[in-house]
Amino acid sequence: MDKILRVNMSELTVAEDPVPQAYQNLGGRGLTSRILLDEVEATCHPLGINNKLVVAPGVLSGTRCPNSGRLSIGGKSPLTGGIKEANAGTPLSHQLASLGYKAIIVEGLPENDEYHVLYISEQGARLEPAKDLAGLGMYAVNEKIRKRYHEKVYVMGVGQAGECRLSNAGISCNDPEGGPGRFAGRGGLGAVMGSKKLKAIVVDTKKIFDAPVTDKDKYGELCRKFVKILRGNPVSGQALPAYGTNVLMNIINEAGALPTRNFKYGRFEGANKVSGEELSARATARGGVGTPTHNCHPGCVILCSNIYPDENGEAIVSPIEYESAWALGPNLMIDDLDVVARLNRICNDVGLDTIEAGGALGVAMEAGVVSFGDGQGAIRLLEEVGKGTPLGHIIGQGAEAVGKAYGITRVATVKGQHMPAYDPRAIKGIGVTYAMTTMGADHTAGYSVSANILKSGGFVDPLKAEGQVELSTKLQIATAAIDSFGLCVFVSFSLLDDPEGWPTVVDIWNYKTGGKYTLDDVMEVGKEVLRVEREFNRRAGFTPAHDRLPEFFRTEPLPPHNTVFDVPPEEMDRMNEQFNMLR
Amino acid sequence: MDKILRVNMSELTVAEDPVPQAYQNLGGRGLTSRILLDEVEATCHPLGINNKLVVAPGVLSGTRCPNSGRLSIGGKSPLTGGIKEANAGTPLSHQLASLGYKAIIVEGLPENDEYHVLYISEQGARLEPAKDLAGLGMYAVNEKIRKRYHEKVYVMGVGQAGECRLSNAGISCNDPEGGPGRFAGRGGLGAVMGSKKLKAIVVDTKKIFDAPVTDKDKYGELCRKFVKILRGNPVSGQALPAYGTNVLMNIINEAGALPTRNFKYGRFEGANKVSGEELSARATARGGVGTPTHNCHPGCVILCSNIYPDENGEAIVSPIEYESAWALGPNLMIDDLDVVARLNRICNDVGLDTIEAGGALGVAMEAGVVSFGDGQGAIRLLEEVGKGTPLGHIIGQGAEAVGKAYGITRVATVKGQHMPAYDPRAIKGIGVTYAMTTMGADHTAGYSVSANILKSGGFVDPLKAEGQVELSTKLQIATAAIDSFGLCVFVSFSLLDDPEGWPTVVDIWNYKTGGKYTLDDVMEVGKEVLRVEREFNRRAGFTPAHDRLPEFFRTEPLPPHNTVFDVPPEEMDRMNEQFNMLR
Repeated sequence: MDKILRVNMSELTVAEDPVPQAYQNLGGRGLTSRILLDEVEATCHPLGINNKLVVAPGVLSGTRCPNSGRLSIGGKSPLTGGIKEANAGTPLSHQLASLGYKAIIVEGLPENDEYHVLYISEQGARLEPAKDLAGLGMYAVNEKIRKRYHEKVYVMGVGQAGECRLSNAGISCNDPEGGPGRFAGRGGLGAVMGSKKLKAIVVDTKKIFDAPVTDKDKYGELCRKFVKILRGNPVSGQALPAYGTNVLMNIINEAGALPTRNFKYGRFEGANKVSGEELSARATARGGVGTPTHNCHPGCVILCSNIYPDENGEAIVSPIEYESAWALGPNLMIDDLDVVARLNRICNDVGLDTIEAGGALGVAMEAGVVSFGDGQGAIRLLEEVGKGTPLGHIIGQGAEAVGKAYGITRVATVKGQHMPAYDPRAIKGIGVTYAMTTMGADHTAGYSVSANILKSGGFVDPLKAEGQVELSTKLQIATAAIDSFGLCVFVSFSLLDDPEGWPTVVDIWNYKTGGKYTLDDVMEVGKEVLRVEREFNRRAGFTPAHDRLPEFFRTEPLPPHNTVFDVPPEEMDRMNEQFNMLR
Repeated sequence: MDKILRVNMSELTVAEDPVPQAYQNLGGRGLTSRILLDEVEATCHPLGINNKLVVAPGVLSGTRCPNSGRLSIGGKSPLTGGIKEANAGTPLSHQLASLGYKAIIVEGLPENDEYHVLYISEQGARLEPAKDLAGLGMYAVNEKIRKRYHEKVYVMGVGQAGECRLSNAGISCNDPEGGPGRFAGRGGLGAVMGSKKLKAIVVDTKKIFDAPVTDKDKYGELCRKFVKILRGNPVSGQALPAYGTNVLMNIINEAGALPTRNFKYGRFEGANKVSGEELSARATARGGVGTPTHNCHPGCVILCSNIYPDENGEAIVSPIEYESAWALGPNLMIDDLDVVARLNRICNDVGLDTIEAGGALGVAMEAGVVSFGDGQGAIRLLEEVGKGTPLGHIIGQGAEAVGKAYGITRVATVKGQHMPAYDPRAIKGIGVTYAMTTMGADHTAGYSVSANILKSGGFVDPLKAEGQVELSTKLQIATAAIDSFGLCVFVSFSLLDDPEGWPTVVDIWNYKTGGKYTLDDVMEVGKEVLRVEREFNRRAGFTPAHDRLPEFFRTEPLPPHNTVFDVPPEEMDRMNEQFNMLR
């Protein structure tokens, strides 16, 4: 029987509750967002006693469905002030689902400053004191926790950034080797966890694919079919396994949409030096501890992750994603992959979202705190966060806060969250997603890059305004469903391009739940997620005025295409209206 | 003929335009807010090229009407993100009105970093380079400007806080002696001025009461009548002249509504040591350069200002207002008036709003950056702002930014602006004003303290929820009219209590303009201002969700009365609905 684990940090109690009927068919993002709408007053202080942190594996997590190991984490965002869901691929998702945990709800606030760890095993859950972990980064936290319990536990937790309740604090989740580099990074949920003085959640079980399905044989057959579909797709079967997500560096640079020097240019001369091809070549040459490609959770068949070694073959960091390589590279005019790796490692240790951290450094460079291109300067700046200096407190809050501290207007944020690695003037579909989604600038909320650049699911000219709102909306709906299933967003290339894609996922869903769902039902799952999230934000005080890009994107042409973002805001507003009413 | 001075900082040009018909009857806050609604896109970046700084003397400024020398300054606020009007009493208001300037609109942004001064005389206006003023505080700026022009010019400008575009930067205006202590302080308009690289506006004229009126003799007679009314009122005729605004320290402390230790308690043991009575006694004993009471502009008959001397009789600062003494005193557990004076002087020099600066220091103390009660620590902290250190950049942004930087939830702000010197749990009418007004927490927007505590204009029990919304709304309407006339808000005690008060002001208005207005027209002026401001904020993305106090005011009882703020939000929303539609 599935259950909900309720952890009260005011009382230091844990309780296992049955899953309410209304939540039976929900999972992942669909469940975290619904619980937030039902239980959290939208106007509450994100770091106060009334916010909650909700963790939920996807509907398909805990099964052998390929790439179903995404773990959703939700809360009211300290960064945006709105609803937030961030997900990470991690064994923890399969484990929690296998243990029957539909969701973990962390609520309340302790009155003192003592940190705790939530320890979960097959015997149940309990809070344990964690004084010894306070003040530590995620590498040390993982080491200490494994010393305290044993080598095979998995961990999610916060570094110094979360303890300091900085609005760019992410939540670190383990990869299969126990590395801390899989982040539910965006939107500052690490600060919510830190505010509750919950340093980490430790899961101790060998169960990984133990969630029940209705027909094991048929389910296995469908999963194998889905594996084949994923492996047959050129993006998820070839490009991503070969070079990881950072295969995009040269592609987006070529497209003239690689935000360079804090969104001033669309191309960067040194892009190739920090590309996936270079990463793969270096990792192979240096004979590191892993292959150049690597998985983030068991059951992944795409293997887009990586472990990046130094010259002696010792791992510096895992993974270097495209978004991170861009944020900490071209965005800062840095073309040295080793510097990018060091910066990425600091983020993983202190517990910062790399996109937002790169954005913050870019704005700091804009302000002249250090110069563009100064890699050692960037490392020094980022190290301040873990040290807790005033400058660290500024940087650790993300790009918008740095802009405010230094009076800088050139800040590429929407709803306070920094844009990822695609300039919305040269890939207008992603600009629409940045603007429309409740999440703040977020590429994963509706990855229009697929049709704009990768020509997956058709082609919509990235430089034209036409068709982008429709494209983005369709993807936002589908993505909200994918995030609810616990599937990796990279399955979507197959879903878009392979006629067998969606039907197979629908079949898997039916054999998981015993339902008789259709593709329409999938889309209804997605729409309902968007409605729920929009309703939360409406209550929190959001209006269409917040669904806008910063003004310089409308007025300053981006070389080399010299285009501006000119999708009519009214078109986005009209489209969003369909999500304004809860069913 | 009245005119509008348009200053374009992109082109470095000035132009004098005729006053559009629609603006003929507007002045002060009514005009600044209207121009902002008409000319500024509400979603623009407050520090970007599309925001404007609007300066307007009141309708009655430039005449012998007593206490009509308030100068309104408006812009989109960097602190709240909404519309902002802040006004100050200063000779500049009379001068600009006497020169026929209905408004000054500063727009655009220069592409380089060179500062300018706007020099205005009877010959017109021009921009002049001001490289030598860059980086200076307001005491030095005033000295240098007087050296460059002559001793009798008046100055408004920004210190280092404005240059750094910090969201708590205010605009310093001169008092009659040329001191820099009369601030249009709230909401960060100094950052808007700084963003435009306009260091100061210098007005060089002997004209002070030269604005035209329709019947000089009759006008003079009415003004003398109004003087008598003001002097006959116990608050404006006795309490304020004797002890200044700081006469409130002991009164509000006695009422149990003096926010102490960052809004933890309602009474402060050391209140009397920083009271108006103590200030007056010290200033007199020390034989300073001024009397204990002093005026902020010619024509003021209330004389609530002061000049506070050190032990040698040398002026430390002018003035110490009640709000400043509270923010920098009891709010920080500081009971030493000399420390308060030093802190106030730093604010005046660097160019910070004292209420917000005290709020910021209070939150920094909450975070443990320095201890509550540590006066020297507070001075050190505040000095960081002028030095431009990272900590200074945090403090200089105001309380909300300090809260975000240090993850503190106990931050007494509404719409990002810090509360003044009245705890809304013990004076609930002022809590309603804090919540309802478009301005962010602002006592002057509807000074319910009058009826809640001073029993002026009736009595509404400060500890009860009943009647507060109606009280606050009436005062918000009247105040918006008073702010448009250029009248000091302290005339309102006479307007509330003396049956001759309002009729006399209406007569003065008619003899100024040749109109045939009634008291209903006055109220319509006020209502229209509120409608215009609310419409701007609606466009900027504000909703009723922003018209709320921080949650701890609803849950944490305030000693000694142990009350919470329990005015139903829906009651405020319903009342505010009348201002939702422009006429």
